[in-house]
Amino acid sequence: MSEANPIELKLSVSEFNQLSAERMPFAQQMGLELESITTSGVTMRAVYSEAFLRPGGTVSGPIMMALADAAMYALVLSRIGPVELAVTTNLSINFLSRPLPGDIIAQARLLKLGKRLAVGEVSLYSDGGSGGTERAIDAPVAHVTATYSIPPRSI
Amino acid sequence: MSEANPIELKLSVSEFNQLSAERMPFAQQMGLELESITTSGVTMRAVYSEAFLRPGGTVSGPIMMALADAAMYALVLSRIGPVELAVTTNLSINFLSRPLPGDIIAQARLLKLGKRLAVGEVSLYSDGGSGGTERAIDAPVAHVTATYSIPPRSI
Amino acid sequence: MSEANPIELKLSVSEFNQLSAERMPFAQQMGLELESITTSGVTMRAVYSEAFLRPGGTVSGPIMMALADAAMYALVLSRIGPVELAVTTNLSINFLSRPLPGDIIAQARLLKLGKRLAVGEVSLYSDGGSGGTERAIDAPVAHVTATYSIPPRSI
Amino acid sequence: MSEANPIELKLSVSEFNQLSAERMPFAQQMGLELESITTSGVTMRAVYSEAFLRPGGTVSGPIMMALADAAMYALVLSRIGPVELAVTTNLSINFLSRPLPGDIIAQARLLKLGKRLAVGEVSLYSDGGSGGTERAIDAPVAHVTATYSIPPRSI
Repeated sequence: MSEANPIELKLSVSEFNQLSAERMPFAQQMGLELESITTSGVTMRAVYSEAFLRPGGTVSGPIMMALADAAMYALVLSRIGPVELAVTTNLSINFLSRPLPGDIIAQARLLKLGKRLAVGEVSLYSDGGSGGTERAIDAPVAHVTATYSIPPRSI
Repeated sequence: MSEANPIELKLSVSEFNQLSAERMPFAQQMGLELESITTSGVTMRAVYSEAFLRPGGTVSGPIMMALADAAMYALVLSRIGPVELAVTTNLSINFLSRPLPGDIIAQARLLKLGKRLAVGEVSLYSDGGSGGTERAIDAPVAHVTATYSIPPRSI
Repeated sequence: MSEANPIELKLSVSEFNQLSAERMPFAQQMGLELESITTSGVTMRAVYSEAFLRPGGTVSGPIMMALADAAMYALVLSRIGPVELAVTTNLSINFLSRPLPGDIIAQARLLKLGKRLAVGEVSLYSDGGSGGTERAIDAPVAHVTATYSIPPRSI
Repeated sequence: MSEANPIELKLSVSEFNQLSAERMPFAQQMGLELESITTSGVTMRAVYSEAFLRPGGTVSGPIMMALADAAMYALVLSRIGPVELAVTTNLSINFLSRPLPGDIIAQARLLKLGKRLAVGEVSLYSDGGSGGTERAIDAPVAHVTATYSIPPRSI
């Protein structure tokens, strides 16, 4: 995004992880951990457990959808502050390859931040035990676009 | 769908629920239960638990996405048989209203069943403690379209 | 949609077709004609011309996307009145089969009408010279979901 | 995409523009012109005419959808060769801002090239009379993901 003003981050990694621990039980069940928030986006990890598996021995789609949605939520809150009622209005995912058992990493960035809607895209990568250092050159296992509705803010 | 031949159901409710119990741990965590398979579609329920909640006190989006995806999987398998490697290639969800705490019901039907791709739509309804008898007249809380890729079948 | 209040139609077929004739030149190029507006939805037709064709001899996707988008626009305006700046924020289309040369019919209905967003679905049918009487039993050639943003209304 | 083998381009800009001129009349009506094909993607332009306008004085959505779809078609053919019956199975567009009258530029790149499906994303930019040199730093006016089905190839 081209923006005239510098981006101000309004939520820290620890603040989001605390919100998640207290108020997002499914995120805890799925092992979702926010890793970083920067002016260019956020990175979130789903720490692998056997509960991720689906028939065929690959990571299930719902894990990837939950990870992408939570990463977008963190991204939006990092820009508008901890507005709990920011909600997803639309999410579209393309599954590109079947991830082997292992962590999944989400990298989310904004395409638009308006007054009423925020739109972003999330690329998901498999981090199959390699320690993650190689993932930057890997192809994504899934790609997501999502729209969040931003509630009217009181003054 | 208009079809020259009568639809043959190739999977029963109990067969799917057994597959789910053995091979889809996240479906168990989320309380997903297939209720019916007919020639016009399938109905699946997500049995409410507090783990469904997200900030704001409504049911989280990932629960609804997981339910819709699993309902589509059951629907596709009911038409092609227990082909484990049928996988989602695309899923798009529109969230329409914020469901209060309670079960979520998915009704899935096919838009297309081809040799390589199956496309369906899923309407999600809130079943907030009313016992479900009134849900038919309620508006959906979310709407999903999804595409499954059908692997080549050996003969 | 279940609605407590009866639906009031705020735009007529002739009013929309006049708006289209005056302000939507691409709709004229593509032969888009609104056929009906009712409380359950709208029906719009794309009158076939050879300009619809794409390689392979079938109707091109962009014709179907334009038809679906215009049908949704007519549907939204029929509910909120002639608010020109109602704009699409998201449109997702699944192409289900390849329509032979001929008219395409769109049937659009609302899934949600909120203050800020309207969500609908559009089923597209091929009307390949059969006069249209049989289309109700045919399978759709494409399926669309779309979201419109409704501008704040002055009082 | 990470690929072991170097990408071989199987279609030139002039070959695509000839195909378009002969077989894609709507692309001609809309002034679509392929500008470049490289190993990282393709760039296509919709040359502005007044037929682009919609109520409100901005460029209509169907023009942007047609441009994105045609750019993806050129991109897929550049990788698999002139296979006419490669067809879109799914296209999802997010409209991000309202483009003023002027050319629209599409930049398309592949997310996946499989045997049966190709998935890509397209960013659309307004080129409103500025000559295009500044567009790289501008925000996109729309973002598209699309899936193409690749027909089985004879040997």
